[in-house]
Amino acid sequence: MKGDRRRPEGLQMRMIMPGGFPMGPGKADLLQGIAETGSISAAGRRMKMSYRRAWSLVEDMNGFFREPLVETSRGGADGGGARLTEMGERALTLFRRIEEKAMRATGPEQAELTGLLRDASKDT
Amino acid sequence: MKGDRRRPEGLQMRMIMPGGFPMGPGKADLLQGIAETGSISAAGRRMKMSYRRAWSLVEDMNGFFREPLVETSRGGADGGGARLTEMGERALTLFRRIEEKAMRATGPEQAELTGLLRDASKDT
Repeated sequence: MKGDRRRPEGLQMRMIMPGGFPMGPGKADLLQGIAETGSISAAGRRMKMSYRRAWSLVEDMNGFFREPLVETSRGGADGGGARLTEMGERALTLFRRIEEKAMRATGPEQAELTGLLRDASKDT
Repeated sequence: MKGDRRRPEGLQMRMIMPGGFPMGPGKADLLQGIAETGSISAAGRRMKMSYRRAWSLVEDMNGFFREPLVETSRGGADGGGARLTEMGERALTLFRRIEEKAMRATGPEQAELTGLLRDASKDT
């Protein structure tokens, strides 16, 4: 399943939180999708993720943070809407800032490592 | 299998290389283990990875870079020794530098994100 979600090239950040909870690009994209679509199922679909999987990730995150990151309005499995709470916005913003800063800090090394690849040598 | 390899807490870096080749902490630790133990099987064992898996990761890396990262001396499955080539040392060094720089660049944001966790709130 995981292999089906093609990630764009580049640096990926995954934080292993105290307690072992992983927070990576998948959960961040899901949060962002919920913010943008107003729906857990629509956000999951966009990522080719089952509703069950998307919902389970949301439940994990909601339980692991001090307050829920995602708030749903009741309405059955596919019915109700969803939105990020203030805590959800904060967590997503922080994660994106970590991605950005790490990316900016490591540009030259990333280029150098990529330059060692067989395919890269064809292009240069 | 992947879930069995417990990663320490903190930020993990994974580079998705052009062509989709992922280079993350698992492959970096394997390279480092080979450098330290002189053996693919010993390096894999240290990571609770099967010899077959360790060998397959090494083959992937060797094929993807311009030159092999790991050089083996013949001697059967468990027999011969292994060591990093110059290219292997360069790739490992670059990857570790990316990890370090990203870590240093994002310390405050990491602390802030961790501070939003339920467990963290007990400690502070």
